[in-house]
Amino acid sequence: MHARPYNFYAGPAVLPQEVLEQAQSEMNNYGATGLSLMEISHRSPIYDAIHNETQLLFKELLQLPDEYHVLFLPGGASLQFSMIPMNFLTPGKVANYILSGLWAEKAIEEACKVGDVYVSFSGKANNFTKMPSLQDIQVHTQMDAYLHITSNETVNGTQLHHFPVIQDVPLIADMSSDILSRPFDISKFAVIYAGAQKNLGPAGVTIVILREEALPQHTTSLPAMLDYRTYIKHNSLYNTPPVYPIYMVNLVLKWIKHSGGLNIMEKRNEEKARLIYDAIDQSGGFYKGLAHPASRSLMNITFKIWNDELEKRFIQEASTQQLVGLEGHRSVGHIRASVYNALPYKACQALAEFMKEFQKRYS
Amino acid sequence: MHARPYNFYAGPAVLPQEVLEQAQSEMNNYGATGLSLMEISHRSPIYDAIHNETQLLFKELLQLPDEYHVLFLPGGASLQFSMIPMNFLTPGKVANYILSGLWAEKAIEEACKVGDVYVSFSGKANNFTKMPSLQDIQVHTQMDAYLHITSNETVNGTQLHHFPVIQDVPLIADMSSDILSRPFDISKFAVIYAGAQKNLGPAGVTIVILREEALPQHTTSLPAMLDYRTYIKHNSLYNTPPVYPIYMVNLVLKWIKHSGGLNIMEKRNEEKARLIYDAIDQSGGFYKGLAHPASRSLMNITFKIWNDELEKRFIQEASTQQLVGLEGHRSVGHIRASVYNALPYKACQALAEFMKEFQKRYS
Repeated sequence: MHARPYNFYAGPAVLPQEVLEQAQSEMNNYGATGLSLMEISHRSPIYDAIHNETQLLFKELLQLPDEYHVLFLPGGASLQFSMIPMNFLTPGKVANYILSGLWAEKAIEEACKVGDVYVSFSGKANNFTKMPSLQDIQVHTQMDAYLHITSNETVNGTQLHHFPVIQDVPLIADMSSDILSRPFDISKFAVIYAGAQKNLGPAGVTIVILREEALPQHTTSLPAMLDYRTYIKHNSLYNTPPVYPIYMVNLVLKWIKHSGGLNIMEKRNEEKARLIYDAIDQSGGFYKGLAHPASRSLMNITFKIWNDELEKRFIQEASTQQLVGLEGHRSVGHIRASVYNALPYKACQALAEFMKEFQKRYS
Repeated sequence: MHARPYNFYAGPAVLPQEVLEQAQSEMNNYGATGLSLMEISHRSPIYDAIHNETQLLFKELLQLPDEYHVLFLPGGASLQFSMIPMNFLTPGKVANYILSGLWAEKAIEEACKVGDVYVSFSGKANNFTKMPSLQDIQVHTQMDAYLHITSNETVNGTQLHHFPVIQDVPLIADMSSDILSRPFDISKFAVIYAGAQKNLGPAGVTIVILREEALPQHTTSLPAMLDYRTYIKHNSLYNTPPVYPIYMVNLVLKWIKHSGGLNIMEKRNEEKARLIYDAIDQSGGFYKGLAHPASRSLMNITFKIWNDELEKRFIQEASTQQLVGLEGHRSVGHIRASVYNALPYKACQALAEFMKEFQKRYS
């Protein structure tokens, strides 16, 4: 029995073991200061170095052009659902949303409180099992304030495998659950944002990567903490940032870099996901994937077993075999295996083997 | 030479050594799960126990009546500066602010973006060296949406030593820098709030303690993440809360409880502050306190030396003697010793001795 369980939680989620070991070793003595990093001023050179290095690591891993800012915000993606329309939805324009799943739905709900919104694609009739194809993603150049997409739907287990090229309308993406899991062309986007607690670190910080020139002028002042310009102007140090979560993100980004970067992450994620999707597809219907095959996520693999009782037994037996966090989201139920960057290949092997063994016993 | 420096940072600030040691010991294996707490779902029973226990500890330490909710929010006090008027400043009413220092000023600036505001007391002409007396604090019952005070001004080094009893107008306090440093009667307040990074834990979570019935009805929907009712309804689990900062707050609250509670904290804080104020007052004018004696803070002790060069030398020499974080806030300059709950008595002894020794050499 291995001491460290295989962690399939959807978020907060698995972190690289090396990162946790480093955090533990320097918890009470950061950089020979004799202090914990949690006790050190955010205006000190010690913290400043972490803050700036974290931004540089994002720039390097995502190959960000100079005009993009890397910002650290509070409140998770849920606060971004409000900040995006507050900052980008100007009077006379309409915000264009792709309704791809539960998270897109929440984003839309908040945007509707701020201004006019329309939904140019909805996967609701298909129970959010399908992402839009590229042809499904359309904009109205004169009308749209922006187009909002969700690159990966954590709850539904679907992922956009290609991003559209949109002319003259800012493209904005919630990438909370697949940021840094694969390379992509950032220049297609005006803004991407992500809560840290899936692929980046612990809960408590949200990354916003933003092209400043895409920000429209406002005639009234937004609250300081809800205005992206505040974070740009003060380099995300207008007030005390969430120092420790940012430090953990720093360590995770270094781990990604030392692992070989985003191409390697993508390759590993494809291999890991294939193990589990193969176990589903080769089960003769014992396991059924919830997502349409073309929309399957490499991060969150959702599936079911024909019998509710068996599903409960599956999750329960898996946990006794050190495979934890396999419950589906409470709004969908069934089974979900989240297999983010930090989850090792052998965890997916163990799950695939367990699936086969379980099927043998119960079919 | 002691390995752990004496930490006078204003925030993020010193944490109890026992708390850091416990956090370190369970960093990679929380509660025999084999996982770090940072990797565990916020919907799991493991996290739930921490979340609920932290609320109970606040209720116990502050002797909260049942009608108060303990909420965990993102964004620091700075986001509260906007959320307070968004939630409490209804049309036709005016918000009443006590302008006691830099932090009150920022709160007012944000409230002005939301609605009508008036300042019923200003310490600006006195350079914010004085807190209002109880007679200075007045409300207009029919007009005021609420009265906002700042219990301790971190930058200026002043503190309100008595709280007013206000009838029929909700009293709201920013207690970021002195929460849990002394007992007080919570029933005077509709809301108190505090960023964690001074007396409660690391940066990344804000505590809001709120009497629900004080919340006015709204005709339009606030953004979910900016509406206190969201946090009440979902027990601060509407979205992923900052799990690790909340866990650290939990450990700090247990440390306060095991140390003897708020009466003991107050006694210790008085003794600690006295050491340094005595060193100032007995210096024959070599050191000068910035705050009016009646308004002196027990948390942030601000003072100056007649000569700028000597001040720089003081801070520099102190740091070589393991007394760190003594720079005044960039807007005020001079010297500031922050002596929060977790700072040990011997740290203040060491600083007082250093002050006397420094004076001997340079006067």
